[in-house]
Amino acid sequence: MITSIKNEKVKNWKKLHRRKERLKTNTFLIDGIHLIQEALNSNWVIQELIVVEGYEIPNDAKDIPVEYVSENVLKEISQTQTPQGIIAVVEMNNTNVQGANELVILLDSLQDPGNMGTIIRTADAAGVDAVILGEGCVDLYNDKVIRATQGSLFHIPIYTATLEQEIHKLQTQGFTILATALHDAVDYTEVRNQNKVGLILGNEGAGVTSSLLDIANQRINIPIYGKAESLNVGIAAGILMYHLKK
Amino acid sequence: MITSIKNEKVKNWKKLHRRKERLKTNTFLIDGIHLIQEALNSNWVIQELIVVEGYEIPNDAKDIPVEYVSENVLKEISQTQTPQGIIAVVEMNNTNVQGANELVILLDSLQDPGNMGTIIRTADAAGVDAVILGEGCVDLYNDKVIRATQGSLFHIPIYTATLEQEIHKLQTQGFTILATALHDAVDYTEVRNQNKVGLILGNEGAGVTSSLLDIANQRINIPIYGKAESLNVGIAAGILMYHLKK
Repeated sequence: MITSIKNEKVKNWKKLHRRKERLKTNTFLIDGIHLIQEALNSNWVIQELIVVEGYEIPNDAKDIPVEYVSENVLKEISQTQTPQGIIAVVEMNNTNVQGANELVILLDSLQDPGNMGTIIRTADAAGVDAVILGEGCVDLYNDKVIRATQGSLFHIPIYTATLEQEIHKLQTQGFTILATALHDAVDYTEVRNQNKVGLILGNEGAGVTSSLLDIANQRINIPIYGKAESLNVGIAAGILMYHLKK
Repeated sequence: MITSIKNEKVKNWKKLHRRKERLKTNTFLIDGIHLIQEALNSNWVIQELIVVEGYEIPNDAKDIPVEYVSENVLKEISQTQTPQGIIAVVEMNNTNVQGANELVILLDSLQDPGNMGTIIRTADAAGVDAVILGEGCVDLYNDKVIRATQGSLFHIPIYTATLEQEIHKLQTQGFTILATALHDAVDYTEVRNQNKVGLILGNEGAGVTSSLLDIANQRINIPIYGKAESLNVGIAAGILMYHLKK
């Protein structure tokens, strides 16, 4: 059992808190049994489990290599305030699945981890086929993003790409690209019954980059009936995805 | 200028971090010029401003009593990580406005401050007429709730009440009460074109209390097309409010 936070393994696990190290090793950490079950159910590869003594490992995880650690070591590795006793090192799954896509979400410079995680969770619920992250987005494997997805990151294809290129590719495949915008935009309820839709959602403060607005096929917005200045981007995403799904 | 965090005034302002003290004094704190402007624009009463030296007070706030404090004192009073230099003590506005209500939101034991604040912001945007907080909800004047509302708490009537009583009152006034539920519920898209609707949203984990489900007129849910277990309650609220508004 590892009891010292100065142990080399502990140092290496902690390095995975940083994006750079995650990219280098192609792995990331997930915390708690719920996320681990979701990863297993979706056939993601778990390299190892980090477990406090006495924690009962579920049957379907019994074949995975385990390192036992003391409570203080687990706390050091965990990024949650109340660690649940089990953490996993998971391999990134970069397979860029191309299927019969009908509805694709493109995120442009989304900065808030909670927003990104919630949008991925909602996209999963709404039956979205893929989420494409523009290069200015917060890292998908950030612990707060992972937590907010509640496991949905294991359910749908999510990948990082240059949005301009992806938009051109989708348009060639017959997709209509919608972008949220405050000006020169139509009410979202006017957009109906389309197959093959790509929806661009923008940065929390700045909205969708103007170069992307220029290449989108249509600009849409959600009307504000009251005195609020705007909607949270996660809420706007939910309203639009469920509207487009209808 | 107050420079000591042991000053009696500083101690009293800090007490407003606690719900009990807010109720006793009927006041609460708001942090930053954006929220202060929103409060002023909506004619809420600001008792005093707490300002760091050198901060330029905007013209429309010039009549409000000011206390100048040092940076370290402001940091002590502020509950944000990067205080903006101005905090206000605001009087609670408990006027239970009864107007020509068409759409009312009832929150049942909502626990997460971010969720509550976001729902209030979305309710404002969606033109909801009032938000009623059941007794098990997180306090409206919690700093995280206030921040997440982005000022919308000053725009629409929000009050705490016993939900059973409010539901009976609304039903007597001709309202149809909808409640979100996982079972024995109809797809929300089947609910259309109703005037006078009350929508009950439930606790993050437990959903709407069964005694409230029993007295609601109709149970609705949002279909899950993918593998996510559920939607975040704030997202569900956004989808439903905008659907009901149509």
